[in-house]
Amino acid sequence: MQADIITIGDELLIGQTINTNAAWIGQQLSLSGIAIGRSTTISDGKQEILDCFSEALNRSELVIVTGGLGPTKDDITKQTLCEYFGTELELKQDVLVRIEEFFAKRGKEMLPSNYQQAELPKSCIVLDNFVGTASGMWFEKDGRILVSIPGVPYEMKALMTEEVLPRALAYFSVKGMYHQTLMTQGIGESFLAQKIEDWENRIYADGLALAYLPSPGVVKLRLTSKKGVEDAERIDRYFRELEEAYPNYVYGRNGVSIFEVVGQLLREKRQTLSTVESCTGGGISAAFVAQPGASDFLQGGIVSYSNEVKELEVGVYSATLAQFGAVSEQTVVEMALGGQRKFKTDYCIAVSGIAGPDGGTEEKPVGLVWCAVAHPIGVVAKKFQFGTDRGRNLEMTTLAAANVLRRVILSIE
Amino acid sequence: MQADIITIGDELLIGQTINTNAAWIGQQLSLSGIAIGRSTTISDGKQEILDCFSEALNRSELVIVTGGLGPTKDDITKQTLCEYFGTELELKQDVLVRIEEFFAKRGKEMLPSNYQQAELPKSCIVLDNFVGTASGMWFEKDGRILVSIPGVPYEMKALMTEEVLPRALAYFSVKGMYHQTLMTQGIGESFLAQKIEDWENRIYADGLALAYLPSPGVVKLRLTSKKGVEDAERIDRYFRELEEAYPNYVYGRNGVSIFEVVGQLLREKRQTLSTVESCTGGGISAAFVAQPGASDFLQGGIVSYSNEVKELEVGVYSATLAQFGAVSEQTVVEMALGGQRKFKTDYCIAVSGIAGPDGGTEEKPVGLVWCAVAHPIGVVAKKFQFGTDRGRNLEMTTLAAANVLRRVILSIE
Repeated sequence: MQADIITIGDELLIGQTINTNAAWIGQQLSLSGIAIGRSTTISDGKQEILDCFSEALNRSELVIVTGGLGPTKDDITKQTLCEYFGTELELKQDVLVRIEEFFAKRGKEMLPSNYQQAELPKSCIVLDNFVGTASGMWFEKDGRILVSIPGVPYEMKALMTEEVLPRALAYFSVKGMYHQTLMTQGIGESFLAQKIEDWENRIYADGLALAYLPSPGVVKLRLTSKKGVEDAERIDRYFRELEEAYPNYVYGRNGVSIFEVVGQLLREKRQTLSTVESCTGGGISAAFVAQPGASDFLQGGIVSYSNEVKELEVGVYSATLAQFGAVSEQTVVEMALGGQRKFKTDYCIAVSGIAGPDGGTEEKPVGLVWCAVAHPIGVVAKKFQFGTDRGRNLEMTTLAAANVLRRVILSIE
Repeated sequence: MQADIITIGDELLIGQTINTNAAWIGQQLSLSGIAIGRSTTISDGKQEILDCFSEALNRSELVIVTGGLGPTKDDITKQTLCEYFGTELELKQDVLVRIEEFFAKRGKEMLPSNYQQAELPKSCIVLDNFVGTASGMWFEKDGRILVSIPGVPYEMKALMTEEVLPRALAYFSVKGMYHQTLMTQGIGESFLAQKIEDWENRIYADGLALAYLPSPGVVKLRLTSKKGVEDAERIDRYFRELEEAYPNYVYGRNGVSIFEVVGQLLREKRQTLSTVESCTGGGISAAFVAQPGASDFLQGGIVSYSNEVKELEVGVYSATLAQFGAVSEQTVVEMALGGQRKFKTDYCIAVSGIAGPDGGTEEKPVGLVWCAVAHPIGVVAKKFQFGTDRGRNLEMTTLAAANVLRRVILSIE
């Protein structure tokens, strides 16, 4: 069986809004084991909607429609649904009660258009929306299903997760798939694939599916079983193999950020962190601060963008800067030790690099980054060579620095 | 006339890649005055591609197809194009030369699949790709046009901008539209609309179109003229009215970032900047560093996440912290002055706030942020009340702080 996705809205067609809904729905369907036929974006004209419904139901057993259900413009989609399925609108008393409660809870006044949101097609199954006022609608025709849900992303996601997906899996007797994701940092997709070739072959021989999901600095591995949750333990065992073999790269599971992982390690050990950042200009500490509760471990940091600040604030020797330069092992080591001393923290991360686009030399090209981590009994330094794009270099440096710290905390070579 | 967009690729259907290409193409077409019929995403099966070509050319005068042209998988799209347009592949000598130069310049070896990229349909006009190896193809059939271009975003954008759009505007005799954008910070969409109501009415009476493009912390105003570039001066005059009336909100034009604007001001005045950040944890200095050449003005900064660092490193009095708390006018003023003194800079930005989700009180709720800017002859402080979302609060604080500094530099009340 396969599904079609229809997204309604001029703002999508003219690119004012990027169609993240279609991507998210495609991902969820595909993760549930349902193939996707087509994904179509249309304007909210009646004939266009009718045509698109016919074409999609002709092609696919399940059609998911989002958009065109807001209080100001729901008439056309709902009326068109009525016309297509040969039914009419009726006031659904229980939906009205739910909408009234929704407004009462928020102390807001209901507008006439909100009352109309309780009028829904007679022949559909209403899918309750507990995070908004536009209900979902589930229609059946000749054994095929068309579902209409609102386009507001968090309402769409709630209805998909709680109503549409479970109902669709049951209706079409699709056995949901089971997934887990392993997070890696510091190794490219192709190098990783080379390292884990044998493991990967065993995965396939065992009937599991593997996907590499790369993004700058992080590659996720997703294992999928068609047998569903009964394979949970088997997948867990496969991932544990990689966790044990490559603890330097593997930092967590299922979408966790490396800053969260490191923050949690520091929290558990009741240890503290400071930063001394040159090229990233505060981006590393900001990444830790992006998570709630960073004050449990983060004391503070220095943005030592100029050499003067490196000397006066962090205590880097001017002789070190003169002899080895700002982007060098010697300088980042002094930066890390200076930050650790200044902030009296267990750990201090220091980075210095040439982010680009200018400032590179033959000996020290754009993309060269030195990172040091001072720890309770010493200091380690690592050298990285990233690419030529400034933004990407800063992002990669931030992630790599967090991983150096993680490895130092866990004593991973 | 209208255009259809077809994006080919399983990674788009299953949501592994968000379809930013369709959004960007829709935006460019719409900005050029070409309406969009449908946007369809399909897998790269031959029959599916053929069907979709027919349907789209049936509906729209112009069809833009992206994807399916990489060196590893271009066969199917190119072969399918040949079948659809009744032509065959031939080796294009000039394209081969261009591909060979492309590889020579990068010192990389050509693979057999790269040679095949010089084989293109006989009947098409080849659109030269100077940033990659897959050429664009322009087909004509019964006065309608189908264009096939690669899906790699920067290759797609280069071909769209340099080849497809100019050719399409000429072919269909569409007069390109003219746009300019005005950037505002620190005022919400509806408040802004209220303030500029009269101006907006004059805009409409004058036959221009206005769009509000809101994002967290920044609202862009886009003015569009159907008469094309001849209206450039008129639009400029309208924008100058707003620049003069609301210099506190309006910070630039056409997509410029506020950090770039402030950086440029500092560069011109040869003045320097430092930061003392609490809640943003380094995010403000990192935002300045994201642009090349930040070392021209940024000396350094302190991430004063703990009170201890505020006292020891920035010289905030413990009495101030005890009496007024870390999130107060008094504390941020001492932070800004302390940073200015420490780093010997002309300006210092300091922020302290409650980013959430926890830590709010009735008196100081989540979202409260104080920002101070020390300048050569004093210090100013501003209070902000943002929302409940931590990530959004940090983003809003970073933008607002840059705007406070901009206003201080330009002496705008």
